[in-house]
Amino acid sequence: MIIVDTISELKAALARQRSKSPNGFIGLVPTMGYLHEGHASLIRRASNECEFTVVSVFVNPLQFGPNEDFERYPRDLERDAALAERNGAAILFAPSVQEMYPSKPLTRVLISEVTESLCGASRPGHFDGVGTVVSKLFNLVQANRAYFGMKDAQQVAVVQQMVDDLNIPVDIIPCETVREPDGLAMSSRNVYLNAEQRAQALVLSKALDEAGKRLREPEMTAGRLAAEAAGLIRTAPLAEIDYVEVLKYPSLKQLDPDQRLAEINAQLILALAVKFGGTRLIDNRLFQLAGGEPHVQNDDEVKASPSYSH
Amino acid sequence: MIIVDTISELKAALARQRSKSPNGFIGLVPTMGYLHEGHASLIRRASNECEFTVVSVFVNPLQFGPNEDFERYPRDLERDAALAERNGAAILFAPSVQEMYPSKPLTRVLISEVTESLCGASRPGHFDGVGTVVSKLFNLVQANRAYFGMKDAQQVAVVQQMVDDLNIPVDIIPCETVREPDGLAMSSRNVYLNAEQRAQALVLSKALDEAGKRLREPEMTAGRLAAEAAGLIRTAPLAEIDYVEVLKYPSLKQLDPDQRLAEINAQLILALAVKFGGTRLIDNRLFQLAGGEPHVQNDDEVKASPSYSH
Repeated sequence: MIIVDTISELKAALARQRSKSPNGFIGLVPTMGYLHEGHASLIRRASNECEFTVVSVFVNPLQFGPNEDFERYPRDLERDAALAERNGAAILFAPSVQEMYPSKPLTRVLISEVTESLCGASRPGHFDGVGTVVSKLFNLVQANRAYFGMKDAQQVAVVQQMVDDLNIPVDIIPCETVREPDGLAMSSRNVYLNAEQRAQALVLSKALDEAGKRLREPEMTAGRLAAEAAGLIRTAPLAEIDYVEVLKYPSLKQLDPDQRLAEINAQLILALAVKFGGTRLIDNRLFQLAGGEPHVQNDDEVKASPSYSH
Repeated sequence: MIIVDTISELKAALARQRSKSPNGFIGLVPTMGYLHEGHASLIRRASNECEFTVVSVFVNPLQFGPNEDFERYPRDLERDAALAERNGAAILFAPSVQEMYPSKPLTRVLISEVTESLCGASRPGHFDGVGTVVSKLFNLVQANRAYFGMKDAQQVAVVQQMVDDLNIPVDIIPCETVREPDGLAMSSRNVYLNAEQRAQALVLSKALDEAGKRLREPEMTAGRLAAEAAGLIRTAPLAEIDYVEVLKYPSLKQLDPDQRLAEINAQLILALAVKFGGTRLIDNRLFQLAGGEPHVQNDDEVKASPSYSH
């Protein structure tokens, strides 16, 4: 594995690889570093599926709000390099802020609707920064496949929307959240937790498990599912809820909170953001519902929506 | 030359070309169709410099305001195809609106500052639409070079800014404005002009010529240059000025209107937008000024702007 911190070195390494193997797949795992087993699993999957895997490590100032943890976000490039290499990466691209933004960036990639709930609502501007930096990384690496963890399910939905809308030639590969043995979703921010916060944070995965069990109850609704998850989280005295929501996925559109889930045929997400002390953790679970009457489209409807037919 | 109207046909044709000639340059000439000699010169240059030239013809609804001429914008695909082929194009890509926007597009590429004057000020949202569709075309074609006419000088500046900010792997090739023998800049919109409007529209290129002559007068300022151009344009009774401005190029930043041009070391643009009847025409000229004291950077300044050094 080689470590590069400039765009010109990255491009040179990619050009060598492309001339050596014009049809070999290139994989990209974009990260903010401080890599953990969740990232390791993305890198392993990329290395298995692609001939050449690029891991980027860049704490992107554009996606942090003014009162967020950009400055104190944990960094350890040496450990990241060892983990990336051990899991099959060919290049670690770790640019400086100046390398990525050599002058004031005037261009933003803005994605609407899918960014307006959950973390997009709690962290204004966050997904503008994500869209912009991910666009840059896609353009720099020109990977065939890019791997993202589903812990950031909204990020996956946002990036997929951007890729579809802008015809970006990359396949987005969503990968399952990796958890600690006791259920806590892996996150670079877990390092901020003290022992007591760490113990109480287990309530998040417990709330998701519990929702999975109660989902099929005949009278269950989206509103009740969210309320019960929030109730369970509040049993942890240190938990401060930012949001607990049940939405459609990947559109992240609202559901009727009172409609019985048994009547719904859609994929839903139960998404959580909860602070423990100063540390904001997120987690989620997807549920595929197959209830309701199959919807039969009649001729009038087909004619009324020409812009959506192919 | 082949004509394709779907993204999948375009991609298939590009893949065939790439496998036949992996190192051959691909050129892109993005247009809104109704091609004229200005476009022809772009296509010829692309064909000379690239092995394979794609001409896109797409009247992009995203870059038209609600009261603009999207519906009546002139279209003639058969003539466009003949012109593109005659000038060396390998593919004419002419997608429908539905092919480019199969569902409501939620992603926008927004460029600030450089879009805030001239046509960006007169046509709110125009350059958001341009940035978005040009991003899509760049992603679809993955050309090595893209050719743009300098009649739309602000568009060239905006696209170059976007390419730089987002690290889009394409070289932007600005090409000189092509004019009718009497000086009128070629434009698909010239077809809207009646004989009297057409005759009076010559005042635009005359105003640019006159400015080029008076530029070196010792007391000339940006403010006077613009005022004199506006005065000359107003001698045409049908002319309704939208803007006449002298700005820095390509930043499109304001100048001190009272500073003597002889003191300035910069590239300037004199940019015009003038309506004749319902038809809005634009034209411009660039001037390289080499006046003023050469600016010697001292150590303090170097230290004070670390984010701009490499």
